Amino acid sequence: MRFVIEAIDNITNARVATLETEHGRIHTPIFMPVGTLANIKGVHQHELANDINAEIILGNTYHLFLRPGVTTIEKAGGLHHFMNWNRAILTDSGGYQVYSLSKSRKITEEGVTFKNHINGDRHLLTPEVAIDLQRSIGADIIMAFDECIPYPCEYDYSSRAMRLTHHWLERCIKKKNSKPPLYGYQQYLFPIVQGGTYSDLRAQSARYITEKDCHGNAIGGLSVGEPAELMYEMTESVCNILPKSKPRYLMGVGTPANILECIALGVDMFDCVMPTRNARNGMLFTSQGIVNIKNKKWANDFSQIDENGVTVIDRQYSKAYLRHLFVANEMLGKQIASIHNLGFYLWLVRQARKQIIQGTFGKWKNQMVKKVSQRL
Amino acid sequence: MRFVIEAIDNITNARVATLETEHGRIHTPIFMPVGTLANIKGVHQHELANDINAEIILGNTYHLFLRPGVTTIEKAGGLHHFMNWNRAILTDSGGYQVYSLSKSRKITEEGVTFKNHINGDRHLLTPEVAIDLQRSIGADIIMAFDECIPYPCEYDYSSRAMRLTHHWLERCIKKKNSKPPLYGYQQYLFPIVQGGTYSDLRAQSARYITEKDCHGNAIGGLSVGEPAELMYEMTESVCNILPKSKPRYLMGVGTPANILECIALGVDMFDCVMPTRNARNGMLFTSQGIVNIKNKKWANDFSQIDENGVTVIDRQYSKAYLRHLFVANEMLGKQIASIHNLGFYLWLVRQARKQIIQGTFGKWKNQMVKKVSQRL
Repeated sequence: MRFVIEAIDNITNARVATLETEHGRIHTPIFMPVGTLANIKGVHQHELANDINAEIILGNTYHLFLRPGVTTIEKAGGLHHFMNWNRAILTDSGGYQVYSLSKSRKITEEGVTFKNHINGDRHLLTPEVAIDLQRSIGADIIMAFDECIPYPCEYDYSSRAMRLTHHWLERCIKKKNSKPPLYGYQQYLFPIVQGGTYSDLRAQSARYITEKDCHGNAIGGLSVGEPAELMYEMTESVCNILPKSKPRYLMGVGTPANILECIALGVDMFDCVMPTRNARNGMLFTSQGIVNIKNKKWANDFSQIDENGVTVIDRQYSKAYLRHLFVANEMLGKQIASIHNLGFYLWLVRQARKQIIQGTFGKWKNQMVKKVSQRL
Repeated sequence: MRFVIEAIDNITNARVATLETEHGRIHTPIFMPVGTLANIKGVHQHELANDINAEIILGNTYHLFLRPGVTTIEKAGGLHHFMNWNRAILTDSGGYQVYSLSKSRKITEEGVTFKNHINGDRHLLTPEVAIDLQRSIGADIIMAFDECIPYPCEYDYSSRAMRLTHHWLERCIKKKNSKPPLYGYQQYLFPIVQGGTYSDLRAQSARYITEKDCHGNAIGGLSVGEPAELMYEMTESVCNILPKSKPRYLMGVGTPANILECIALGVDMFDCVMPTRNARNGMLFTSQGIVNIKNKKWANDFSQIDENGVTVIDRQYSKAYLRHLFVANEMLGKQIASIHNLGFYLWLVRQARKQIIQGTFGKWKNQMVKKVSQRL
């Protein structure tokens, strides 16, 4: 996996790079829209490519394993073909969803036994199974199987979970190397740094992960309820250890402000359900701040959704119209807001990229963090 | 309103015409997608214009009166501006929804008193109010306020409702003529033939309506549960009386087969919620027949949604993928099915148009009625 750093900010640790996959070049820093069930809710694939301009999206192995199942995805020739998306895809390992969604799960050294949240069937997910499932799905970047812990979590448990994650990583790598990819193009395995909110564990995990010399590295177990400052602290300490020459992916983060702050710490890749989930509840992220479009104040505001909006959608509909759709509970409202928010997130990381190249990132970032966090 | 007949079938009463509005030319026979609440559920306006190629859509006065309310629509400069749709719009009078949705309605010579279905507020809808509301909404074609009766309905009641509809028509015309249009372009009032399922009442109503010499004429009170044969019988008898030189609009009809049969009887315009409502339940109308996409038989069918499909959507997604979206209850499934079905309905009327011009409509129609009615 070619990862070429093109610019480094002179004040922060922000950097600009390109990452090559066989499904296209990814310009980092990048945000990856979350397409849990082989689609981004409310958004057509051509809108994602042409209007939002996403370069890589995320799929959830746990969800895809349950529906449509890997047999169907294999028959389709992989997830790219199944959903008709020819740009890059990253899949998580299924671990996080097993902890957050399934019932009566039991974690052992072997793996995790759980009942799925759809029909209660019992399954065993192991590092080997997670790699096999991701091989069938066929994402360009696949993730190691890890144990995700909640926040807060005691030191001893955090430490044990981290060690288990490390053991599982060895098995993931072994399994990954045991078979060629299924669809003729490379899949790149990213290991995940764990260690909860304890700096020494995080450092230990980051060093361990670094040694494995994988194509990229991820930071997991953050954005799970801890204060933002703690998330930044952990991210910073981990970024200081993870090799500069490889992409860094901060999993599940975050708000526009979180993303800007973590770009400054040296993170290259992000994913989060926030832009789409909040969109479906009528919360718009705009270049001027946060808009609750259901609010009565927008009832007769016929200005565009976002004056600086970059998507076609932003220029087609007014705030008053979008508010009406939400008040009347029309699905088109959720569609418009989802496209807008994703368009904004991708615009934001593209802007960050430009500012880093220009050498103006630090100042711009501080202004933008304030702007995008205020409620209009 | 210019209405130019371009071709007449030599066997059936089907005809091809163009109808000019200040928001574009409409090529008949035409199907009008139903945009109840200032949007077609699940479909962006640009998809409606560019992919589905709808030339005119329908808005529901009753719904728009409740949400967003005519004040907001007036402030936006009319419904076209509010929803950003610059092609033609037709609005119904609100009558049908008052009967089907509202609570404790009371019909008098004056009008209808009812409690709305959102918050139970009491309103009085009269012919004058219906015209005023439609003036504020600003559709290109507006409908007279009528009394819709259910099926079955006794002769005496059908007769009384028809007479009331006729009285109300006089008041609608008077009100319409009392004020200029609000937004600078013409609005054309269509009266509605009623009379239930009684041929003599239908004939009486058609003659009465014809005398009013409006720009077009509508047939109401059908497709309300009566057998298709009875609907065709009533439509035929009414079409034989309504002037050939003016557009004929059959309200609320229907299945693809219903539309083809009624084109053969001389109807020019149709509207129905069926393509969108059924789409949201996973029923696809295709050129080969009806597909219940939730059916397990499509789970591994990677062929296009409709091999003869005309929308971009038809070529982007497979049956297996669309089925997955429905099984997983993803809104994108409803979006795809809605675009597909509307695209198919518009394709069907365009095909009918071509066949009439070619002089091959009769035979083609009989084949298509069978084809589009079968379940795949």
